[in-house]
Amino acid sequence: MRTIALIVEYDGTLFHGFQRQTSQRTVAGELERALTTLCGHPVQIVGAGRTDAGVHATGQVVSFETSYEGPVERMPLALTGMLRGEGIAVLRAVERAPGFSARYDARARTYEYLILNRLSPSPLRERRALFVRAALDLGVMNAACTPLLGEHDFSSFCAELPERGRPVRVVERLVLERRDDLIELTIVADSFLHQMVRIIVGTLIDIGRGRREHAAMAAILAARDRVAAGPTAPPHGLYLTHVRYGDPL
Amino acid sequence: MRTIALIVEYDGTLFHGFQRQTSQRTVAGELERALTTLCGHPVQIVGAGRTDAGVHATGQVVSFETSYEGPVERMPLALTGMLRGEGIAVLRAVERAPGFSARYDARARTYEYLILNRLSPSPLRERRALFVRAALDLGVMNAACTPLLGEHDFSSFCAELPERGRPVRVVERLVLERRDDLIELTIVADSFLHQMVRIIVGTLIDIGRGRREHAAMAAILAARDRVAAGPTAPPHGLYLTHVRYGDPL
Repeated sequence: MRTIALIVEYDGTLFHGFQRQTSQRTVAGELERALTTLCGHPVQIVGAGRTDAGVHATGQVVSFETSYEGPVERMPLALTGMLRGEGIAVLRAVERAPGFSARYDARARTYEYLILNRLSPSPLRERRALFVRAALDLGVMNAACTPLLGEHDFSSFCAELPERGRPVRVVERLVLERRDDLIELTIVADSFLHQMVRIIVGTLIDIGRGRREHAAMAAILAARDRVAAGPTAPPHGLYLTHVRYGDPL
Repeated sequence: MRTIALIVEYDGTLFHGFQRQTSQRTVAGELERALTTLCGHPVQIVGAGRTDAGVHATGQVVSFETSYEGPVERMPLALTGMLRGEGIAVLRAVERAPGFSARYDARARTYEYLILNRLSPSPLRERRALFVRAALDLGVMNAACTPLLGEHDFSSFCAELPERGRPVRVVERLVLERRDDLIELTIVADSFLHQMVRIIVGTLIDIGRGRREHAAMAAILAARDRVAAGPTAPPHGLYLTHVRYGDPL
């Protein structure tokens, strides 16, 4: 058996999330269907990030075991052809050592969140960025990010606490940049709690439009309670852009 | 009567082009319908660029005359609300001196063309950029742009010659830049012949992938014959991004 990793892009608005479901169209379900045809045996994949419905990816990583003996470098074209029009493209395929897991071997995930901040919505960025008409103060939003850096209990920014393990994560980078009308948030952490990025974004937007003080962020974090934080930002502004491994893909 | 100019964005794939048609959904048709409701009398608009079906705009400018007496600065929100979900947004409205024409007073138009140049297509840029798998040599493509700069007869790059006037245009800027997988062409000219940008792009792609020498561009231009140039690139990579006036909007 060989272990193969794929780097995958998808339009999240076309799927009921990443994880396989019996009756709904999901990213994992479509990928497994194509891989099962290509490899000639049932394939089960593991993803680095279990993105929710509506969340996009430009750098999702999945891994699987297969007895497929063909050249790995031909897989992206074959799979992308099989998935044409389905909203998924396979960008790259790499063989890894046996036992490699896209999920458990991931050292860090990078997510980006796009906010279109101007007076009018954009037909060309529909379902690709969150439209916010209210003026956002990027200076206070970036100041509010500081308390979140480092290792913390992020229970305040978690929709559903994990069944196992502590809700502690290490955020190594969190920054917002503006390019014309577009605000781009980048966050890097070892891993993320459920809807963690979207709740952080919703809270930062509240701060950026002046509904809360930026100094409130430390207290929100310390509360370890979801009700302390702001609303959950919608999924269609969110992108899983990169997954880091000890041995880069 | 007042003369008003609007800056407009639209997703070109949702329209049968800009120009009003009796039985097809067009950008001008939808805008005129909303303006007629808002202004309370039939409105006819003039556009700076008559974009073809599938061509997008982030900075189209239209002008019209109206007896509407409300505040101009409220028009974008009202119109964008009326056009919600229709693929058009009005970004800005400005009152101009009587007689102003978005078309005849325009000194220059800027178009951009996006080429996604990598091994796999992008579900997230579907209908937003032309996907080209073949490696493109940006150096030779930029070299091939040089003969097109300045005042020339662009008949070789014209799908249908104008009924009146000479097919002479002044290209003041033509450059290609690469950002990761994306090649962005920017072209600025006083005005453009029919499908001129798309034929230039199609010819540059032929050159970039080695099907033609970059030195051939001067001869293609000199031929003044459409058959000398390359294919017409598809519309969905093309954006009308800016229109310049003597008195900036």
